[in-house]
Amino acid sequence: MAGPLPVSPLAQPMPEVPPIAGVTLGVIEAGIRYKGRADLTMLEFAPGTTVAGVFTRNKCPGAPVDWCRAALKGGKARALVVNAGNANVFTGKAGREATAATAEAAAKLVGCKPREVFLASTGVIGETLPHERLTAALPALHAALAPDRWADAARGIMTTDTFPKAAVRTATIGDATVTIAGIAKGSGMIAPDMATMLSFLATDAKIPAAALQEMLSKGSARSFNCITVDSDTSTSDSVILFATGQAKHPRVPAEGGAILRDFARALDELLLDLALQVVRDGEGAQKLIRIDVTGAASAKSAHRIAMAIANSPLVKTAIAGEDANWGRIVMAVGKSGEQADRDKLGIAVGGTWMAREGGVVPGYDEAPVVAHMKGREVEITVDIGLGRGKARVWTCDLTHGYIDINGSYRS
Amino acid sequence: MAGPLPVSPLAQPMPEVPPIAGVTLGVIEAGIRYKGRADLTMLEFAPGTTVAGVFTRNKCPGAPVDWCRAALKGGKARALVVNAGNANVFTGKAGREATAATAEAAAKLVGCKPREVFLASTGVIGETLPHERLTAALPALHAALAPDRWADAARGIMTTDTFPKAAVRTATIGDATVTIAGIAKGSGMIAPDMATMLSFLATDAKIPAAALQEMLSKGSARSFNCITVDSDTSTSDSVILFATGQAKHPRVPAEGGAILRDFARALDELLLDLALQVVRDGEGAQKLIRIDVTGAASAKSAHRIAMAIANSPLVKTAIAGEDANWGRIVMAVGKSGEQADRDKLGIAVGGTWMAREGGVVPGYDEAPVVAHMKGREVEITVDIGLGRGKARVWTCDLTHGYIDINGSYRS
Repeated sequence: MAGPLPVSPLAQPMPEVPPIAGVTLGVIEAGIRYKGRADLTMLEFAPGTTVAGVFTRNKCPGAPVDWCRAALKGGKARALVVNAGNANVFTGKAGREATAATAEAAAKLVGCKPREVFLASTGVIGETLPHERLTAALPALHAALAPDRWADAARGIMTTDTFPKAAVRTATIGDATVTIAGIAKGSGMIAPDMATMLSFLATDAKIPAAALQEMLSKGSARSFNCITVDSDTSTSDSVILFATGQAKHPRVPAEGGAILRDFARALDELLLDLALQVVRDGEGAQKLIRIDVTGAASAKSAHRIAMAIANSPLVKTAIAGEDANWGRIVMAVGKSGEQADRDKLGIAVGGTWMAREGGVVPGYDEAPVVAHMKGREVEITVDIGLGRGKARVWTCDLTHGYIDINGSYRS
Repeated sequence: MAGPLPVSPLAQPMPEVPPIAGVTLGVIEAGIRYKGRADLTMLEFAPGTTVAGVFTRNKCPGAPVDWCRAALKGGKARALVVNAGNANVFTGKAGREATAATAEAAAKLVGCKPREVFLASTGVIGETLPHERLTAALPALHAALAPDRWADAARGIMTTDTFPKAAVRTATIGDATVTIAGIAKGSGMIAPDMATMLSFLATDAKIPAAALQEMLSKGSARSFNCITVDSDTSTSDSVILFATGQAKHPRVPAEGGAILRDFARALDELLLDLALQVVRDGEGAQKLIRIDVTGAASAKSAHRIAMAIANSPLVKTAIAGEDANWGRIVMAVGKSGEQADRDKLGIAVGGTWMAREGGVVPGYDEAPVVAHMKGREVEITVDIGLGRGKARVWTCDLTHGYIDINGSYRS
């Protein structure tokens, strides 16, 4: 496309991210695809850092995802290398060689095993990653790593993003305070070209890998797995959490447990903050949409219904047009295939119930609905009227901007 | 929206539909929603007419779908009444009363049981159908029914369609020739407002209801269930086939069988013809896209993969941009969740293999691909490389036109 995209109207300012003990970061121009901007990002972690990860469910994942899944079995991490501009997906043997060569080069610099190096690549699919450019840039990148470069890292991993995404939270473990920092990229949820969702988090807490993984999996299910822009699923999506163990706090047992309650709360908040920043940067997004489903047969059923609404092009275009078209929501509930009874459905927009028990609410006040639809944040509640299952998901509207961005991406 | 939509660039001229013995048709202005155009269509069938039907799988169907499902149990039909402009969906008890009142009024005019009257309504959801306007218009409509008004009927059932859709085929049963005629409407596949897919077919053949149903179910699975515009599923979709039994041919047994082989072939052709006309009128469509999947683990798996590709907004916007972005096709295969091996995938566009065995084909000729993408009809072949399952589906591209139509529909 000609020139950079305008910044999303839903963008948020990037918070100040403090140094995390045991983490140094840096970025460099490796010239992989972009010119005049950093496109290679590295994080180094103190010895003893544990790691957890959640990856795409796409059946055709990129070589870096395969690499990370294997590396995760060791539960230890010393480095993360991320390049922007080339996804190293659908690149066959050359792609596997690129991941191995990059990890080996980073491992040599850090003084660790290649399997303690984690990798992520986003960008164009099917082009061989020129990994010799990565390995050539790594020594200078490594030599300049510093603890205070989170903002640079947040920018370095961007592709079609229109604003950098970061978040930070503190939590107590026993009577000690620990910090969790995170960055994310993503703006199509989740396109295979240059718009994959990646998120990397680090904490100074000392948490065994198994407990870390359990918290990350649960937190991701309630955050990154509850957002959608266009129903497409990247071949590269990755969320990786590193715990450097530099903070002093009571020992956390392997199975985690009650001592991690506040940490899990802070992690959940952080993950949701980053996930919503990704939706706020959804391609062409003009409105952030929150969908609550209540009264479904189960929580799983509620989630499926909510995602069917969130992924419906007809619902999303109606909201772009500021039209509280609840007929399209009825349609989306029905197409989800989940248990629903037309005659028990209720639908509210911005807190105003427009439909109840299978029919329009006679004489409901349209004024607050119209005003709500004109805002940047739209809230939809759908009550299925059958059980106690509930779910909450987020999406954005479907606009001309989405077509512009995706109809001419490579040209 | 302001003014009528421009006719789809993929439109086809309507064929001449001859009278079908045992069928009379007509249209009238009932003033349900539209002004200055016919919005009520009626077909009357000779005594002894058998019927088969296939309906939406949406769990929140409209009242007319419920009515037809119940009426279908009798296997006999004498009339069909279709209104445009109001879907009679999500209208609760009032909706059920509207269907019963309409069927009773039509039955009285025809001299049959209400359960021999079939109904379809498309248009806005959630507004009470003013059925007294329908029943008031029915006597004049019924009095003017004639055998040669298929073209009027094709226009009378339209809502957001930009061109009327009809098709006709002949078939032999024994040594007799019979005719099958059909009309269809639909342009979003399949929106709940004014863009539901409906298709009505009639033949002069004498075919028991069970055999008719089997052929219609099979034929719909290979036609109407293989098209998609936006992945949305209407609450009103209906395909109904009437067989008047006026033609003279050898007796068809209840279970059908070999004698119906040529009829089934002609019916399949007709259904596919009409289904493709619906895709050609897809909201905002500029290109008709055919997707062939071969080498899948099973036919069902191939169908799911093909539909995942056909429903991917990223694939559809790329094609709108005339970009043979096969990376997005890889992504869509992966997100289908079906068995696939990245390293065995092959992808061809317009017959040119761009990717084979998990990687780009080195030095493939881009010129024919670029030329093919500029055309009105785009053909994509994906070979999964695992088994013998294959499927073929059709869709259209996703353009600014779709956003225009659906982002401002009710305003």
